[in-house]
Amino acid sequence: MQAVKKLVLLGTGLISGSFALALKRARLVEHVVGVGRNLDNLQRALDLNVVDAISDDAAHAVVGADLVFIGTPVGQMGALMQKIAPHLSRDCIVTDGGSTKQDVAALYQAYLPQQLAYCVPGHPIAGSDLSGAAAAQFGLYEGRRVVLTPLPESDAVVIEQVRNWWLACGAQVYQMSALAHDEIFSSVSHVPHLLSFAYMNSVLDRYNAAECLDFAASGFRDFTRIAGSHPDMWRDIALANQSAILNDLRANMQQLQSLIELVESSDGIALTNYIQRASLARIEWGKPLKGKK
Amino acid sequence: MQAVKKLVLLGTGLISGSFALALKRARLVEHVVGVGRNLDNLQRALDLNVVDAISDDAAHAVVGADLVFIGTPVGQMGALMQKIAPHLSRDCIVTDGGSTKQDVAALYQAYLPQQLAYCVPGHPIAGSDLSGAAAAQFGLYEGRRVVLTPLPESDAVVIEQVRNWWLACGAQVYQMSALAHDEIFSSVSHVPHLLSFAYMNSVLDRYNAAECLDFAASGFRDFTRIAGSHPDMWRDIALANQSAILNDLRANMQQLQSLIELVESSDGIALTNYIQRASLARIEWGKPLKGKK
Repeated sequence: MQAVKKLVLLGTGLISGSFALALKRARLVEHVVGVGRNLDNLQRALDLNVVDAISDDAAHAVVGADLVFIGTPVGQMGALMQKIAPHLSRDCIVTDGGSTKQDVAALYQAYLPQQLAYCVPGHPIAGSDLSGAAAAQFGLYEGRRVVLTPLPESDAVVIEQVRNWWLACGAQVYQMSALAHDEIFSSVSHVPHLLSFAYMNSVLDRYNAAECLDFAASGFRDFTRIAGSHPDMWRDIALANQSAILNDLRANMQQLQSLIELVESSDGIALTNYIQRASLARIEWGKPLKGKK
Repeated sequence: MQAVKKLVLLGTGLISGSFALALKRARLVEHVVGVGRNLDNLQRALDLNVVDAISDDAAHAVVGADLVFIGTPVGQMGALMQKIAPHLSRDCIVTDGGSTKQDVAALYQAYLPQQLAYCVPGHPIAGSDLSGAAAAQFGLYEGRRVVLTPLPESDAVVIEQVRNWWLACGAQVYQMSALAHDEIFSSVSHVPHLLSFAYMNSVLDRYNAAECLDFAASGFRDFTRIAGSHPDMWRDIALANQSAILNDLRANMQQLQSLIELVESSDGIALTNYIQRASLARIEWGKPLKGKK
């Protein structure tokens, strides 16, 4: 497998830092440069040997790189691509860790038109409450899934190369279209986050919100864990995957309307069936190792 | 503090069994009888010394008891009260662990009219995925909350007695009206469960449900953990606390409608503010020991 001579992380955090650490452990990278705007965070990345050098200048940092990993929120990726475009080596591979893929594909097309054969958008599925370079870990991708959504222009050899690096990180690598990716992740990631925000805000709107929150227990805790997620990141995702998300939110409104009618009807058997359908599916889902992902 | 000579558990499971074990540890109970319909479960309770005797006959079991704890789903409580009414000692205290309280209060009024001074409805807040007598544990109520919702007829001395038993179990004891209880728990327990069922069913309705579930990860796992809850128990709760739940579900529909409009508007700042409100509140909620409840 081809080793990376110079890997540049644009955005040095949990996702990109753990990718760098895993490649280091696999002896598949010689030199890692961490780029970012938060100097404290970069310094920690350097102290922890997540990266070997740091920079606040993306354009300068990518010179001579053979792999660039864009690990920023999706909202910052376009400006970064524009900045680095004139400075990339002709055969530098560019990938990313963005949670949405149709919009990121459009950014590659818009800002790196000369580089497209070497661009392979990706999405490592490794959500965590933690963030920042200090949270990076060698084993984050062990057994985790990584979805690659190659561009029509992506070179097959380059796709294979990116796949092999992820495999070396211990990940299971999947490939699908950006559209299929965005629909799937709208349904099982983006929409649950938005529903959790909406639920939390509905509690806050109550006249007795403080008292309610005071008695909230473990069910509430788990249901709302993702409501504590980062506002900027989730604004970006909501706007980036707007169409799939709106479809799913509307389907959830319909679902909620049906549930309201069911509760109003006092039809115990129908209500049991409704709950049982969800309950059996959730128990089934939790059975294999999936709950550990 | 007054010790219990004969405690009868109607329904021998996690909630009632842990109450019995905690009282045993505090040396506040002499003899515990477990009543239930599942003989395997009763035998396990006996083997594990959660109870000292077992019975499948509630009416016979309560004879001579000075404390009865009704630990069944709310839907079974009325029939049990009716069954035991003629066999209770005049001063036998009756309490329960039901998750809804207005409907349980009505059951006490309907089926135990002679006993009301000695009846103190309660709700120990100790949700768990586990159930059954085998899951009962001495320390389940350590630091947990127990809400008592006395009847207008409940005797002050009796209320104090029940409160002291719970305190001896390590619980924090609160007192409020059944109405206030039901509104609070609709908002932070019942409705999250129903929303989680509805969300799960909306995923199951997708043409690509299997593929979506295959890529679901930790956010989905936590958001839907409560969707795996017991259908009969949650049907009972949905029907028992129908009015508060319908109010809250409708408020959540409104909230979802606002969120859809917000996503449609592509207004990044408003969307950030919306998410931030939820996120800050959730982070604040998780700060103290509450997350451990």
